[in-house]
Amino acid sequence: MVWQRPDGRKADLLRPVTFKQGFTNFALGSVLAKCGDTHVLCTVSLDDKVPKFLVDSGKGWLSAEYRMLPSATQQRQPRELLTLSGRTQEIQRLIGRSLRAVLDLEILGERTIIIDTDVLQADAGTRTTAITGSFVALTGAIEQLLHQGVLEKSPIIGQVAAISVGLLGGKPYLDLNYVEDVAATVDFNVVMNQDLDIIEIQGTAEKDSFKRSQLNELLNYAEKGIQELLSAQQAIIKEWRKEIHEEKD
Amino acid sequence: MVWQRPDGRKADLLRPVTFKQGFTNFALGSVLAKCGDTHVLCTVSLDDKVPKFLVDSGKGWLSAEYRMLPSATQQRQPRELLTLSGRTQEIQRLIGRSLRAVLDLEILGERTIIIDTDVLQADAGTRTTAITGSFVALTGAIEQLLHQGVLEKSPIIGQVAAISVGLLGGKPYLDLNYVEDVAATVDFNVVMNQDLDIIEIQGTAEKDSFKRSQLNELLNYAEKGIQELLSAQQAIIKEWRKEIHEEKD
Amino acid sequence: MVWQRPDGRKADLLRPVTFKQGFTNFALGSVLAKCGDTHVLCTVSLDDKVPKFLVDSGKGWLSAEYRMLPSATQQRQPRELLTLSGRTQEIQRLIGRSLRAVLDLEILGERTIIIDTDVLQADAGTRTTAITGSFVALTGAIEQLLHQGVLEKSPIIGQVAAISVGLLGGKPYLDLNYVEDVAATVDFNVVMNQDLDIIEIQGTAEKDSFKRSQLNELLNYAEKGIQELLSAQQAIIKEWRKEIHEEKD
Amino acid sequence: MVWQRPDGRKADLLRPVTFKQGFTNFALGSVLAKCGDTHVLCTVSLDDKVPKFLVDSGKGWLSAEYRMLPSATQQRQPRELLTLSGRTQEIQRLIGRSLRAVLDLEILGERTIIIDTDVLQADAGTRTTAITGSFVALTGAIEQLLHQGVLEKSPIIGQVAAISVGLLGGKPYLDLNYVEDVAATVDFNVVMNQDLDIIEIQGTAEKDSFKRSQLNELLNYAEKGIQELLSAQQAIIKEWRKEIHEEKD
Amino acid sequence: MVWQRPDGRKADLLRPVTFKQGFTNFALGSVLAKCGDTHVLCTVSLDDKVPKFLVDSGKGWLSAEYRMLPSATQQRQPRELLTLSGRTQEIQRLIGRSLRAVLDLEILGERTIIIDTDVLQADAGTRTTAITGSFVALTGAIEQLLHQGVLEKSPIIGQVAAISVGLLGGKPYLDLNYVEDVAATVDFNVVMNQDLDIIEIQGTAEKDSFKRSQLNELLNYAEKGIQELLSAQQAIIKEWRKEIHEEKD
Amino acid sequence: MVWQRPDGRKADLLRPVTFKQGFTNFALGSVLAKCGDTHVLCTVSLDDKVPKFLVDSGKGWLSAEYRMLPSATQQRQPRELLTLSGRTQEIQRLIGRSLRAVLDLEILGERTIIIDTDVLQADAGTRTTAITGSFVALTGAIEQLLHQGVLEKSPIIGQVAAISVGLLGGKPYLDLNYVEDVAATVDFNVVMNQDLDIIEIQGTAEKDSFKRSQLNELLNYAEKGIQELLSAQQAIIKEWRKEIHEEKD
Repeated sequence: MVWQRPDGRKADLLRPVTFKQGFTNFALGSVLAKCGDTHVLCTVSLDDKVPKFLVDSGKGWLSAEYRMLPSATQQRQPRELLTLSGRTQEIQRLIGRSLRAVLDLEILGERTIIIDTDVLQADAGTRTTAITGSFVALTGAIEQLLHQGVLEKSPIIGQVAAISVGLLGGKPYLDLNYVEDVAATVDFNVVMNQDLDIIEIQGTAEKDSFKRSQLNELLNYAEKGIQELLSAQQAIIKEWRKEIHEEKD
Repeated sequence: MVWQRPDGRKADLLRPVTFKQGFTNFALGSVLAKCGDTHVLCTVSLDDKVPKFLVDSGKGWLSAEYRMLPSATQQRQPRELLTLSGRTQEIQRLIGRSLRAVLDLEILGERTIIIDTDVLQADAGTRTTAITGSFVALTGAIEQLLHQGVLEKSPIIGQVAAISVGLLGGKPYLDLNYVEDVAATVDFNVVMNQDLDIIEIQGTAEKDSFKRSQLNELLNYAEKGIQELLSAQQAIIKEWRKEIHEEKD
Repeated sequence: MVWQRPDGRKADLLRPVTFKQGFTNFALGSVLAKCGDTHVLCTVSLDDKVPKFLVDSGKGWLSAEYRMLPSATQQRQPRELLTLSGRTQEIQRLIGRSLRAVLDLEILGERTIIIDTDVLQADAGTRTTAITGSFVALTGAIEQLLHQGVLEKSPIIGQVAAISVGLLGGKPYLDLNYVEDVAATVDFNVVMNQDLDIIEIQGTAEKDSFKRSQLNELLNYAEKGIQELLSAQQAIIKEWRKEIHEEKD
Repeated sequence: MVWQRPDGRKADLLRPVTFKQGFTNFALGSVLAKCGDTHVLCTVSLDDKVPKFLVDSGKGWLSAEYRMLPSATQQRQPRELLTLSGRTQEIQRLIGRSLRAVLDLEILGERTIIIDTDVLQADAGTRTTAITGSFVALTGAIEQLLHQGVLEKSPIIGQVAAISVGLLGGKPYLDLNYVEDVAATVDFNVVMNQDLDIIEIQGTAEKDSFKRSQLNELLNYAEKGIQELLSAQQAIIKEWRKEIHEEKD
Repeated sequence: MVWQRPDGRKADLLRPVTFKQGFTNFALGSVLAKCGDTHVLCTVSLDDKVPKFLVDSGKGWLSAEYRMLPSATQQRQPRELLTLSGRTQEIQRLIGRSLRAVLDLEILGERTIIIDTDVLQADAGTRTTAITGSFVALTGAIEQLLHQGVLEKSPIIGQVAAISVGLLGGKPYLDLNYVEDVAATVDFNVVMNQDLDIIEIQGTAEKDSFKRSQLNELLNYAEKGIQELLSAQQAIIKEWRKEIHEEKD
Repeated sequence: MVWQRPDGRKADLLRPVTFKQGFTNFALGSVLAKCGDTHVLCTVSLDDKVPKFLVDSGKGWLSAEYRMLPSATQQRQPRELLTLSGRTQEIQRLIGRSLRAVLDLEILGERTIIIDTDVLQADAGTRTTAITGSFVALTGAIEQLLHQGVLEKSPIIGQVAAISVGLLGGKPYLDLNYVEDVAATVDFNVVMNQDLDIIEIQGTAEKDSFKRSQLNELLNYAEKGIQELLSAQQAIIKEWRKEIHEEKD
C-alpha cells in the first residue's frame, strides 16, 4: 500500500523552511528555525572556560543542550528534572558532534560555545531542525565575536545541515512529520556537510529490517533534502550579512 | 539623588505591553507576552487528574511552572536540574495562587489546568509578566474548552494582572527593568483583580527598610499600572473573540 | 460571623512568648523560642568562608536553614530529602533576608553566619517565631565572638522581629494559631525593625481578595505585636548580659 | 599508660542519665533523653499503613529515623540532603532492629510505629542514647494507644537499653564521651534486653585488634551499664504512670 | 599512512570469539561473551509485569541494562550513580531495540524480559559484544521458559548480531580494539539479522566526514564479520542444546 | 528441633572455597572468590589522591565498594541508583575497615587503594567472601606495585579473613548459605586477623536474643572457619608467587 502524505507533499519534498535571525536579543546568536510545524529556538552563548580534559590544550569546545517545552506537543509532557531521558541525552550529543564537525577548535581557542536548542513546537524532525538552525545561529554568533574582536579569525570551517528520512510501506520519504514518524518502519537521521559528505548517520528499524538497496534510496533522498537546506541557510546568512553592513554604513 | 530611568520613562509609566495569541498551536492556550524586553511564553494545558488531596472533592486545580531559557539573560544561566532553586519555586507558587484566585474550582470540576511560563528573554518583571500573560492564555484555553464542550460554563470569575514597583532614591517607580531592579532598595510585586483588590503583595527591603507612607505611594503606582494592564488584557481578548466569531461565520 | 479565638484571646493579643538562652551548648548561640505552642530551636554557627560571589569583597554573609521535625505536627510529616519543598525554601530565604537587614556585612568581614531554625513543635507562625528567636540567638553569638576576640566590633546595626496577622470573617487578628491559620482568608507575615519600619511584607489572599483599608488594619495589628516582641527580646538580652557579667565578676 | 577520664569518672560508671517525658505535645510519645552532654529527642508516631512486604500479613512494623541537628556538634555539620550517609543509615537500621526485638508485631497489627530520634546535642553515644530513650517514648505512646482504644493489648514484650563501651590503653571503659570515643582503639555498642540477653553487638577495631578475653571484659562493663539504664527507664515509666493515674482521678 | 593493527590482524578479521553458557546459575540465561579482551556478562531475567503503555495490550517487552565494572578499563572509572551518562543510556537503548527486533512480543505475552549486560573487561566493542552475547543468553532463557511451561511457543523470530567497523587512514577495519577505536576517524556500529538485513546502523565522524563509497566498504566488512558471529552463535546454541538433551536422556 | 543443613554439611564445616587470581587483566589485582555458590569478583585499583582529611598527612587510604549484579539472586533485584541502600553502605564500610586493619597507611603513602567487590552470584555470605577474596586481590596488587617500583616496601602488615556464623534451633552453624541465613535467629559476621584476634564482630538477633554462652560457641566456630580461610589464602598466594617467579626466570 502506498503512503499518502497527510499534507499532500511529494515523497522527496521538504516542508517549508524558515529561519528568523535575532529572535531574542541577549544571546550572541539567536534563530527561530521552522521546518513545517516544528519550531526550534536555537541560541548561542560563550563561556570562557573549557571542560577539564581541554584545559591548557589551546583548544576550545562546543556543547549542546536540547529540551522540549512541555506544551510543544499535542499531549503535554512533563519537564525532565532530576535526570535527563536517554532520548534527550542522545539528541544533545548528536547536536554537539554535528556542529563540532564544522568547527576548528584550535582557532576557537580555549573557550566553550554553548548551543541551546529549545523546541517550542514539535511535529517531528526536532533534532534535525535543531542542527540546521543552530548552524545559522552559530554563524551569527561568530560574526558577533569577530566584530567584538574576541576572535580574529572565524573557526567555522564548513557548513552542516541535517534531515530525517524514513521508510513507509517499504518506500522512502523525505522530512517526516509526526504522523509519518509514528507510521514509519525505518527511521533515519542524516547529517551532512557542504560537500554532502556524511558526518553522522543513524538508522533504526525496530519494526522491520531493511536492505542495503533501501539504505541507498534513503541516502539519495537525504542528499536532496540537505542540498536544499544548505541553500536556505546560505540565503538567510547572506541576507543577514547584508543588513548588518547596511546598518554600519 | 533622583533616579534617571535608562529608557527615559516617567516614574509612573509601564513599558510597552503586547500579547501575541496563538503563538504556538498545540497547546490549549498560548500567548507570547511582552513587557518591554521581557518576553514570556505562557501556555495552558489540561490534565484529567487532580492532585491527591482533591480526589473525589468535585473540585479542580490549577498549577503553574516557571522557567528561564538559559540564554534569556545577558549572561547565560545553567538550566535547573536535579532541584529547582528557591526563587523558581517561589515564583511558580505565586503564579499558581494568583490565577487560582480568579478561578471557580468547583465549576472547573475534577481537572487540573497547567500553566507553563517560559521566559524567552528577561529584562526584569518576569513573574508579573508571566501572571498577566497567563491570564490571557487562560481565557483562550477556557474558550476552547467551552467550544469543545468539555466545559459547559466558564470557571473564570475575575480578572488578574500583576506588576512590580520599587523604591529608587526613596521614590517609587513603576515596572522596573533589569538595571532598575538591581539598583532598587525596595522591591515590590503586587497582584490585583478587576476591582483593584489585592490578591498578593510581596515587598522586600534587603538593602533598606521602608515606611508605611512609602508603602502607600508604591501601592498607588501599582494600582495605576495594573489598571492599564487590565485594559490591555481586555483589548486583546476582545479582538481575539471577534476573530474567532468571524472565522465561524 | 465574628471569629471566636480557640484560646479566648482578644483579636490584638500575642500568644505567650519566651526565649530560653543557651538551650544547647556547642553552638555559638542557641535559643529555644516559644510563641504559644510553637517551639523553634534557633542556633547560630560561624563559617570561615563566604559564598563565591563575595570572595575578596571584604563582606560577610548570613544564611539560614529551616526544617520541621517530622513529629512537630499533629500528623507526622516525612522529612524532606532529595529536594526541599518550595515552602521550606521560601521560608529559609525570608529568614536570611530578615536577619541580614540588621547586619552590617562589612563589619562582619569575610565570614558566614549560619542560622539553623528547627521547629520542634508547630502551631502556626513557625517562620515568624524563627525570625524573632534567631535575632536573640544572634545577639548571643555575636557577644561570644566579641568576647573571643574574633570580632572587634558588633556587626548588629538594628533589631528585627516578625509576626503573622490574618483576616477571619473580614476582621484582623494577631498571631494566628494553627486552627486560625487554616480558617483565615488572608494570611500576612510582617517583618519590622526597631523603628517599626517594614523589612518584609508578604500577604496572600488565595481564598479571597482584600482592600487597602484592610491592609492598613492588618499593619496596625502587626505593629502592635512586633512592638511587644521587640520588648520581650530586649528583656531576655538584658537579663542574659547581666548573668554573663555577674559570672565574670 | 592508664587513661584519665576527662570528667573524672571511674571506668565502669555511666554519665548522668535523665528522661524528660512529654517534651513535645503533638507526637504520641516524646522523650528528651540525656546521657551526659548527649541530648536526643525521641518521638513516636503511628502510621496506618505497613511496608509492602507486610500487607495482608496481619503484622505491623516499626521503623526508625536518626538525624543530628547541624549545630549539635562543636563544628557545625551540614544537613544530609539528597542522600543519607552510611553512618546515618547504619544507625537508623540498628535503632529499628533493637526496638522491634521487644515488640510483638502481630499484637501491634497492621500498623507502623515510626521512631524519630533527633540529636539536639552530641557528645558521643548518640545511637545508644537514642535506643534507650526511644524505649521510654515507646512505652508512653503505647499507653496512649491503649488509652485511646486503638490497641487492646500492649505489643511490648520486653525492655531494651543500649550502651557503648571501649578499650583505651587496652583497658575497658563504660559510656565513652566524645574525647574518649576518638581516643579508643576498640569501639563497642551493645544492646540488651531485660534479662541482659544480647540483642545486638557491634565491635570495631580499626586501630587495633582485640582478644576474646578483652571482649569478655567489655561485655561485663556493658552488662553493668545496661542494668542501670534498665532501672532508670523503669523509674521514669513508673513515675509517669503514677502521674497519669492521678490526673485521671 | 597504512594502519598497522596492534595484534597483527588482517583488516577484515574478527578477534577470537567465545561464549560461555551458564556462567552464573541463578539467572534464566547467563552467558560470558568474549570478543578478544572485551568480556561481557549477559544475563536474562523475567518480570511478570510490562511497562504502563503495554498493560492490557497482550504484548510483552524487552528492556536492557548496560554497565561497566569500575575496574574493567586500564584506568578505573567511577560507578554511575544518581544519573546515567548519555553514553550508557544510548547503549542500553540500542541493546534493547536490537533484541526486540528478533522477538515477537505478542507470542511473549504480557511479560518483560530484562537483559543485564555487565562489562567485566573492556577493550572496545562492548556494546556490540553485549548484543551478540545477549542473543545467545536469550535463546538459553527462552529454552528454559519453554521447558518450564511458562511459554508454549518460542517468541524468537530471528537471529541478531552486531559488530563495529571504522576508518583508519581512510581505510576500513573490522572489529576495532581500544587503541584502534581511539585512533579511528569514523566509528560505525552495525546490527544485522540472519539475512544480513540491517536492524541498526550508527556512524559517527567527529574528526572527519566520509563519502558514500566509504560507507559501502564499511558495510561490506560489517557483513563479513556479522556472518561469522552468526555462525559462532549457532555453534554454541547447537552444542548447548545437545548437552541439555543428553542430560535429559 | 535440630537443623538439617541443605547440603548435608556438618555444623562446623565451610563450603568449598576457591580463589581465581587474574580473573580480569586491566585491574592491579583481580580475584574471583567463590565460597560455595557465592561468587564475588574482587578487584584492586590505585588512585593518586587521598580523601581531603588526609591531604598532606603522609598517609594513604583504602576504600571499598560493594554491589550485587541484578541477576546474582534467584529473584532479579534492581540496581541501586540515586542512592545506595543502608545495607550496601554498611557492607562497603565494613569491607573498608577490615582491610585497613592490615594495612600500614604510612607505608602506603598518600595514595588511595580502591577495592571493588561485585557479587556475580549470591548464596549468602557475600560480605565475608568479599573481605576474604579482597585480601588475596590486595596482595596481588601490592606485589604489582612493588614490582613496578611504585612502592618500595609492602604496606601489608597482617592477614585478614571473615566468615558468618549463626544460630539455628539454638545451635551454632558455620558459613550459612541463603536458606540457612533466612532461617537463622541470630546472624553473626566475624572478621579476624592472622592471630585470630578480632577486628570486627557484628551480631544481630532480630528474631530472638542470645546468651553470652552462645556468643562463645559462635566465636569458637568462627575461629575454626577463619583458620581454614587463612590457610586457603596462603595457599593461593604462595602458588601465585611461584608462577610469577617462574615466569621471570
